[in-house]
Amino acid sequence: MRSDISEIVAGVISSVLPDTAVMEKIAEILRERELNNVILVAIGKAAWRMSSTAKSVLGDRISNGILITKYGHSEGNIENIEIYEAGHPLPDENTLLATKRALEMTSKLSSNQTVLFLISGGGSALFELPKDGITIAEMQDITNQLLKSGASIVEVNTVRKHLSAVKGGRFAQHVAPAKVISLVLSDVLEDRLDSIASGPAYPDSSTSQQALEIVKRYNIRLSQKAFEALGEETPKNIDNVESYVIGSVRTACKKAQQLAKAMGYNALLLTTSLDCEAREVGRMFGSIAKEIKNYDKPIEKPCAIIAGGETVVHVKGNGKGGRNQELALSFALSVERLDRVALCSFGTDGTDGPTDAAGGIVDGQTVQKIRRAGYSPEELLENNDSYTALKIANDLLITGPTGTNVNDVIILLVV
Amino acid sequence: MRSDISEIVAGVISSVLPDTAVMEKIAEILRERELNNVILVAIGKAAWRMSSTAKSVLGDRISNGILITKYGHSEGNIENIEIYEAGHPLPDENTLLATKRALEMTSKLSSNQTVLFLISGGGSALFELPKDGITIAEMQDITNQLLKSGASIVEVNTVRKHLSAVKGGRFAQHVAPAKVISLVLSDVLEDRLDSIASGPAYPDSSTSQQALEIVKRYNIRLSQKAFEALGEETPKNIDNVESYVIGSVRTACKKAQQLAKAMGYNALLLTTSLDCEAREVGRMFGSIAKEIKNYDKPIEKPCAIIAGGETVVHVKGNGKGGRNQELALSFALSVERLDRVALCSFGTDGTDGPTDAAGGIVDGQTVQKIRRAGYSPEELLENNDSYTALKIANDLLITGPTGTNVNDVIILLVV
Repeated sequence: MRSDISEIVAGVISSVLPDTAVMEKIAEILRERELNNVILVAIGKAAWRMSSTAKSVLGDRISNGILITKYGHSEGNIENIEIYEAGHPLPDENTLLATKRALEMTSKLSSNQTVLFLISGGGSALFELPKDGITIAEMQDITNQLLKSGASIVEVNTVRKHLSAVKGGRFAQHVAPAKVISLVLSDVLEDRLDSIASGPAYPDSSTSQQALEIVKRYNIRLSQKAFEALGEETPKNIDNVESYVIGSVRTACKKAQQLAKAMGYNALLLTTSLDCEAREVGRMFGSIAKEIKNYDKPIEKPCAIIAGGETVVHVKGNGKGGRNQELALSFALSVERLDRVALCSFGTDGTDGPTDAAGGIVDGQTVQKIRRAGYSPEELLENNDSYTALKIANDLLITGPTGTNVNDVIILLVV
Repeated sequence: MRSDISEIVAGVISSVLPDTAVMEKIAEILRERELNNVILVAIGKAAWRMSSTAKSVLGDRISNGILITKYGHSEGNIENIEIYEAGHPLPDENTLLATKRALEMTSKLSSNQTVLFLISGGGSALFELPKDGITIAEMQDITNQLLKSGASIVEVNTVRKHLSAVKGGRFAQHVAPAKVISLVLSDVLEDRLDSIASGPAYPDSSTSQQALEIVKRYNIRLSQKAFEALGEETPKNIDNVESYVIGSVRTACKKAQQLAKAMGYNALLLTTSLDCEAREVGRMFGSIAKEIKNYDKPIEKPCAIIAGGETVVHVKGNGKGGRNQELALSFALSVERLDRVALCSFGTDGTDGPTDAAGGIVDGQTVQKIRRAGYSPEELLENNDSYTALKIANDLLITGPTGTNVNDVIILLVV
């Protein structure tokens, strides 16, 4: 079972690597039609790898392009592609410079040209330009005022989109009549295309009226220019864009389900938007494991239960660990001595908390191994010391940084 | 949807009432064979109602009997049945007196006689007699020493069973060659028949050797008589007993699933042994609801997801509420403004925490109603004030005490 889990984990990570995901999607598009006169625009922490792959697949069909990534994330030159590094998580002068250059490069295009728009995590900070007359400083000041007044993140984003020259569908509007093919590697839950990087190439679901109401409700100080910008509606109909989520926690979970099925497991995808306390998810998976063992519910053995998302840990102790390791340890406690049950929880980026592990692979023996070594697994969990606990049991999953990030995946096997 | 949920809730509670459960099972048995020369022995908090129903169904086929329940739980005379009230959660002199009387009444039976053994919550404390030469005080002292030494509840029960004249299958041994029909209304998770009331009529899975090792490991002080008692093996093969769980959180969940299916919902029973933090289960159900809404996973709409168990609340605030109400409020926060989603979490005993509510029935409008009334649902949850929150939204489920207790049931509907 542990080798089955390891195989599924490896397959899942590989399926959401920027390289694999971009390559497969472009190959699929090329099977259906030609792609020529392509201008590449890539934003986000994986922009370099996504661009490099796109260039290697499309070659000269990409005429020119630009990629904007976080400082230190470029891995060298790519032919005909201009490379910018800029601030993250906060935009800086390089962000504005690079974004302006991207707009220049994509202005006055014709309808037989295509912008290949590659988006990955961090894209929102790395691709930004306030509308004329608004400074990035004022944009940040308005954001801060909103957050201090208790505005929700949805409200903050509604206002920001209306202040931006590229967000909320305006980038797609800018490149028209050229086509946009948008490939998205998503690190946010629920994959909402108007939320990912604040949707530069997707119709905005928020309205100018809402933006104005929000600044009124929270009594926000802003310049006349900013006030006028909020009054301008974001695009609601965009007909020059195709958007594809090529990698997300959902594609990772579906891949896990598919691999488990191919190995002969009945496989149930529970949810891809987990956001609760890690150790409680571990206990809940423990309850489900027992139900399957005893009653073949919710599905019959041999089976896999798969979930994804981004759990949280409210740290109380001073141990070492991460949300995936904590989830795995908590599960292990709840299935102590149960045989034929195993679970892996891991971060697809290969990094769980401030540790060198991606997560943990545990079973009914994990806790026994910790006890036999003279430690209390309960106390280690209480002290948020899941890394130490799983290290003792030799149950850490170590992959090294994977170069992608589509959040966390949990795989439970019961046979 | 709310009326569908209410209907399911009513059907679930009715199916696990002591009266219904006893009546249906006895009727089922009577369809297959005759029952005569029955001696009734009932232990637990629902002993009176179970006995009263059995007597009304079987009439004179019950020759005589005894019921042992908690102080204040008898509701009057039942013909030919001796009624004892005793201590709970700790046994007292009346427990010993009543248990001795039950043993007297069931000694020297013949193989054509049947003991109808009715077990409900609290049965472990209410039916107890140490072996000859051991006092109830020493039994309690040994238990306390074990608990203080960090022994697990399984270890404590292993020792206690070996000190008892009735637990661990000894009661069944005592009444042989008469038959025992054991009907169990279970308030413990996982329905293990050797755990419920410490299994007076079920083969013991723990051994004399384990009991001796445990007292040695924790260096427990005990009398020579107690030490000898631990050396005597509990029955491993019992062939005069039939055991039926007639009501448990599992039967309640299966009933919910069956009723939902009959209404046209696809229905998935997730688990019946939930034991994690209530609000986190609420969030997890929120994640599942969103997955169903967006992707028809883990099952297709219209659907019901059902779970059972006994969640916990770590109280930090000073509000009013219960685990089911807190779970429901947390779910409501996670599905704010989502339509066509509803959830009910309730205690089958009709009493959730120190409130007059059984739980809550919530949907995507619940949190909106609370906000419109000028309250913050987040702050109410933080203050463990789920009762106040759901009362404002008019989303409390109030049934009154139901007279049964098989823990909590959660029903999620998405259409």
